[in-house]
Amino acid sequence: MMSPFIVILSTGSELTAGRSLDTNSGWIANQLFELGWKVKKFITLPDDPNLILSELQSLQTLAKEKPVLAIMTGGLGPTEDDYTLESVLKLTGKKSYSVEKAKLRLTKIYESRGKEYKDILPNVFRQTFVPEGCKTLDNSVGIAVGFVESIGEKSYLVCMPGVPSEMTEMFKRRLVPELKKLYPRENLLQKTKWLWNIGESLFQNDFIEPNRTEFFHEAEWGVTANRGYIKCIFQSTNQNLLDQIINRLETQYPKIISDDVFINVHDRLLADKLTISVVESCTGGLLGKKLTEQPGSSSYFMGGFLTYSNEMKSNLLGIPIETINTYGAVSEEVAKAMVDGLCQKTGTHYGVSITGIAGPDGGSEGKPVGTVCIGIKEPNGETTVHRYVFPGNREAIRENASNTAIFLIYQSLKNRVI
Amino acid sequence: MMSPFIVILSTGSELTAGRSLDTNSGWIANQLFELGWKVKKFITLPDDPNLILSELQSLQTLAKEKPVLAIMTGGLGPTEDDYTLESVLKLTGKKSYSVEKAKLRLTKIYESRGKEYKDILPNVFRQTFVPEGCKTLDNSVGIAVGFVESIGEKSYLVCMPGVPSEMTEMFKRRLVPELKKLYPRENLLQKTKWLWNIGESLFQNDFIEPNRTEFFHEAEWGVTANRGYIKCIFQSTNQNLLDQIINRLETQYPKIISDDVFINVHDRLLADKLTISVVESCTGGLLGKKLTEQPGSSSYFMGGFLTYSNEMKSNLLGIPIETINTYGAVSEEVAKAMVDGLCQKTGTHYGVSITGIAGPDGGSEGKPVGTVCIGIKEPNGETTVHRYVFPGNREAIRENASNTAIFLIYQSLKNRVI
Repeated sequence: MMSPFIVILSTGSELTAGRSLDTNSGWIANQLFELGWKVKKFITLPDDPNLILSELQSLQTLAKEKPVLAIMTGGLGPTEDDYTLESVLKLTGKKSYSVEKAKLRLTKIYESRGKEYKDILPNVFRQTFVPEGCKTLDNSVGIAVGFVESIGEKSYLVCMPGVPSEMTEMFKRRLVPELKKLYPRENLLQKTKWLWNIGESLFQNDFIEPNRTEFFHEAEWGVTANRGYIKCIFQSTNQNLLDQIINRLETQYPKIISDDVFINVHDRLLADKLTISVVESCTGGLLGKKLTEQPGSSSYFMGGFLTYSNEMKSNLLGIPIETINTYGAVSEEVAKAMVDGLCQKTGTHYGVSITGIAGPDGGSEGKPVGTVCIGIKEPNGETTVHRYVFPGNREAIRENASNTAIFLIYQSLKNRVI
Repeated sequence: MMSPFIVILSTGSELTAGRSLDTNSGWIANQLFELGWKVKKFITLPDDPNLILSELQSLQTLAKEKPVLAIMTGGLGPTEDDYTLESVLKLTGKKSYSVEKAKLRLTKIYESRGKEYKDILPNVFRQTFVPEGCKTLDNSVGIAVGFVESIGEKSYLVCMPGVPSEMTEMFKRRLVPELKKLYPRENLLQKTKWLWNIGESLFQNDFIEPNRTEFFHEAEWGVTANRGYIKCIFQSTNQNLLDQIINRLETQYPKIISDDVFINVHDRLLADKLTISVVESCTGGLLGKKLTEQPGSSSYFMGGFLTYSNEMKSNLLGIPIETINTYGAVSEEVAKAMVDGLCQKTGTHYGVSITGIAGPDGGSEGKPVGTVCIGIKEPNGETTVHRYVFPGNREAIRENASNTAIFLIYQSLKNRVI
């Protein structure tokens, strides 16, 4: 069937005042792309009930012409500037009710904090309400219940909380299965691969253009840029064609291709019962933070050192000050000494060191801002050091460096002979 | 005079596909706020000439009811998917012409690259065109000329390039003086304070409601929830009233109020020439990462330890395994031992330790998921330990814990007797 006309609507005065950046809409658009849908419009409104209602009315009018899917985030919270439910009730003329399951969840949360049901403030309680007869979307992270409301033939308004952690969980676990029922379509298959330290436009010139006639009449492609890597997404209903594309990609980029390294490194370290420790300079803890994002990471991540200053590199790891002075704190030699010193202290199977110039100051002709050395000590005792010059600002360089370090562990784990 | 109804319109298929984040709209909204104007709506459209024209027609229709100021970015570039000028010409029925000054600038740029006027590609040349009779906005960074076109009584459509460096320069230097002529008005003042570990709804009940009649007839308030703190924003044209509000807030919440702790801690550590080190368990490096986000942080942040496993707490810091076994790794006693051990090794003025249960597993009745102990060693040698139970999922708990640790340093720095 025909794809709906998709509009993503975010509400929040902090957004239209420019105090916060709306990351929800782009995230949702990206997810919808994976379902094979393109978004036609983003709208952002302040917490103003008149503006919100009038926008919803316009969407309802549009739904008389064509199937509309409006996905709205925000305005389901407990404060007086949360107008989403109220606006939807005005739009549809419906009444609201409190969802039993959400009420119980809220009560349990209060009890766990040593409070009772009667302590729940009325405005907190409000978040358990949805319009009568809607399809509810459970919130497994926060309190506010999401819902799907009909606004015309094959047209729906989806309302979800604006808190990203609540919204993303609700979207993936509750909304996607609903959308697949509401707008069934041919099964689109998808493959995703990551390519490291290559730009979007170079990828398009070198891979998409030469293969356009052969592959991309029957397959769609998309690419999203991330810190250190691009995510290449291919979609088709033809499995065989998808396999050919991935094959060509692996042949063309054998050294920089990967799957999701964050998941993959977690799974492999767990499965192979390997441990890891880190020593970080310019990233200041970001690599350790990334390696401990997955629950269960305590099985492999032991810890390590933050040696931001040269003094700490010397005092905590025993690197001779002369080595640092001779080669510079950002050098292959110091990266090697850091990871060797680290593993001596921690005794883990893997060790990773990062030292670099995150900027904006500290660059020189031979070592511009963005220069980063990453040392990897492997379970067989071998140490390799990799040197990069990452683009972007301080934040980008630090993200690039930590992500690339995880990619290097991924490669080592993949090539490991057991 | 009445403020215009302000709409910010960005175009770009990379935006609605979620491949790029629109930072222009928020930036513009922020600048307009300083002029005393609130934005009523953001719209983002893909590079689709029909959708763009239809949106401009809607704005023209709206301008029949009230003064509209539409600020559009993007679509003025040289490629085939740049539709802004074409859409405006269709909307107004006008013709376009090439701006002499821009043509000269372009020629000079070509000459400086060793090329000639005749080498300029027609699509590059296109960027010097604007509608007849519009107000032009010079581009001093790139090539594309911006313009202001009338779309009704006291209603204007502003078109600017989407490249942030070109747009921001054009906005500040060319557009703001125009806007001040088109819509003169008085200045709005703003104050922001942060409150820690308090919910939005509790704040509204305890502060906004009781003070509503006294303060909020002539001042506006807003609140945004963050990890560990809420940001309370107050606006008014009355400076005296704003001061009274902040005064009341400080009186009511003396122990949990702060300014921007990230900036403030950075500035104070630098100014007072103090050093800091950290030892992190459940946050895995996140606190160190946050303390090294500002350029120049190497003047105060020395480094520290990641002691994710009990073994590392014992091996790297010398905490007796019996202490860990007796009190548990997440306890006031271990947090204290961690920060004491840390400062012995690093010798910094400040030391911070974090140990907690980030979940989703590992909670128990006495120590539910979210329990976090934070130890602070102050320059005078005193150590204090603070215990919290943070709400939310693993990511939220880790963010809460690191942010709260920085708040504790903020408090210590503020109360320091020098």
